[in-house]
Amino acid sequence: MPEKKIQFSRQKVSYFFEASISQLKEIVPQKKTIIITDQHLFDLHQKKFKGFQTIVLKPGEQYKVQATVDAVIEQLIALKADRQSFLVGVGGGVITDLTGYIASVFMRGIGFGFVPTTLLAMVDASIGGKNGIDVGAYKNMVGTINQPRFLLYDASLLKTLPDGEWRNGFAEIIKHAAIKDVSMFRQLEAASLKHFQKNKAALEALIRRNALIKSKVVQEDEFEKGERRLLNFGHTLAHAIETPYNLPHGHAVSIGMSFAAHLSEELLGFNGFVRLQQLIQQYGLPTEIIFDRQQTFELLTSDKKKDGDHMNFVLLSKVGKALVEKIPLQTIYNYL
Amino acid sequence: MPEKKIQFSRQKVSYFFEASISQLKEIVPQKKTIIITDQHLFDLHQKKFKGFQTIVLKPGEQYKVQATVDAVIEQLIALKADRQSFLVGVGGGVITDLTGYIASVFMRGIGFGFVPTTLLAMVDASIGGKNGIDVGAYKNMVGTINQPRFLLYDASLLKTLPDGEWRNGFAEIIKHAAIKDVSMFRQLEAASLKHFQKNKAALEALIRRNALIKSKVVQEDEFEKGERRLLNFGHTLAHAIETPYNLPHGHAVSIGMSFAAHLSEELLGFNGFVRLQQLIQQYGLPTEIIFDRQQTFELLTSDKKKDGDHMNFVLLSKVGKALVEKIPLQTIYNYL
Repeated sequence: MPEKKIQFSRQKVSYFFEASISQLKEIVPQKKTIIITDQHLFDLHQKKFKGFQTIVLKPGEQYKVQATVDAVIEQLIALKADRQSFLVGVGGGVITDLTGYIASVFMRGIGFGFVPTTLLAMVDASIGGKNGIDVGAYKNMVGTINQPRFLLYDASLLKTLPDGEWRNGFAEIIKHAAIKDVSMFRQLEAASLKHFQKNKAALEALIRRNALIKSKVVQEDEFEKGERRLLNFGHTLAHAIETPYNLPHGHAVSIGMSFAAHLSEELLGFNGFVRLQQLIQQYGLPTEIIFDRQQTFELLTSDKKKDGDHMNFVLLSKVGKALVEKIPLQTIYNYL
Repeated sequence: MPEKKIQFSRQKVSYFFEASISQLKEIVPQKKTIIITDQHLFDLHQKKFKGFQTIVLKPGEQYKVQATVDAVIEQLIALKADRQSFLVGVGGGVITDLTGYIASVFMRGIGFGFVPTTLLAMVDASIGGKNGIDVGAYKNMVGTINQPRFLLYDASLLKTLPDGEWRNGFAEIIKHAAIKDVSMFRQLEAASLKHFQKNKAALEALIRRNALIKSKVVQEDEFEKGERRLLNFGHTLAHAIETPYNLPHGHAVSIGMSFAAHLSEELLGFNGFVRLQQLIQQYGLPTEIIFDRQQTFELLTSDKKKDGDHMNFVLLSKVGKALVEKIPLQTIYNYL
């Protein structure tokens, strides 16, 4: 399996592309490793976990909360985990966020790695060291920034992924194209979801390309003072509507990207608004929703990106080029 | 107020020695600062908190738990805290541990500083970036290592400190002397608790000396791969008996130091066992307790310092010189 190493400020991360989950035992010592996964994945891939201690969680974003962290910590104590123990999160973004957070605080930090099992986790959620949990309606309100030791990519895990989950992944892929990679934007325009689902080589290349786009942005700005904020394109509104309207993350992000593109058109003269909307729709994703303006505005302004009565908002100057603008909260309210 | 800066791996920490808590507003922007303290301190020093937002907790180690963290996070959200918010923990080790932990995970990390109000916190607990909470009987099972931006030392805060709390502080001061500073060990032998309580200059010099001993050890080994483990002298047993027997931390550490000195005598021919016991007693601290051998052994071997069937244990080779030895668990059981 090809291994690529990327050095972050405090940790070198190994990326095992085109790998198989069965190779996990070559990377970590089985005896000291505890796999954290969810019931759905455990039922699907039980054999692959043989020889590992496993903690199985209920699936779903509603369990990305402190109560789950508390329960896992109780289980780690019961398993007599120590500082040499190693956690591997096998799952989507909920599992990798929880695993990274638990490993970062258990005994003040133990080692951890990820096997992302959704397209979204492969190209986005599992990369960059951000982890955490939700507090009420506030997503990722609590967490740390701490890099995993490795990411293992096994595209065959996507075989059982529902179409809706594929589309969630493509929302982030479109985001990467919109903010950083006009050539990938064109490639996506010329292709379709079906094409990538049927063509393993194209899919693996796309995953690798996106994993490296995100990693490079994070590497340049791990603690989110500048460049990394570009990855929030579409996410500020997304975080305010995802939970209240029970939207899939990719839907929320797509609607958020559409809103941000509209703001970009109004404030910066961005000329790709229609083109971005078309690409979003081409991959089966929505560009709008009817929402409660006042409630959404309040949630939006509780976001971590707020700074007094302004808010840092990611806009596009052209397709493939994003920037952060400090916008008065009132302006955002007017366009909502 | 004299300021000394010490660079840790990820953060420079400012030490404001011989300062006054009334100078806090010169260091931090009042509007963005939220003080975390306990009810006891709030009642004593209410005037000093004027102009700051304040979160007041119930006093006591039994509140150094996740439920308190959850409650504070709810309050931070209600106060509309954002990433520019700054937390200041004003209190003993429980408050600084909680504040450091909460600041490290709220919105994936915001800035924080400490005003330690007990001798123990001034010379030990508030220094070095370790923070965290207890889980059941397991002390500091969950937390992070993350340095505060500053430590503000106001010795006048000790005027209202009960004698028992002074002795808790001296347990750690004796520890520093035992592992690192034979000249301070002699100074302590020649003095008394009363001497330091009555002589502000001697007290401030002692605080500064101990704060810098601990800071230097931590600086050399922030993430506890070697040197920093020396600070655990007396603490491995202490952590196993403190909660079950409801001991003050200084008592548990003193008993732990006495046990470790005994082990040092048996295993390394350490010749200062009696001298250390005498110094501990001179400062009104105990050297032994009757405990349940089996229960204590089990708690002790759940400690973070365990590594398989051995345990890293801090011993003394002579007064002022400590080292880490890997000891079979069975040996520890035999001497308990």
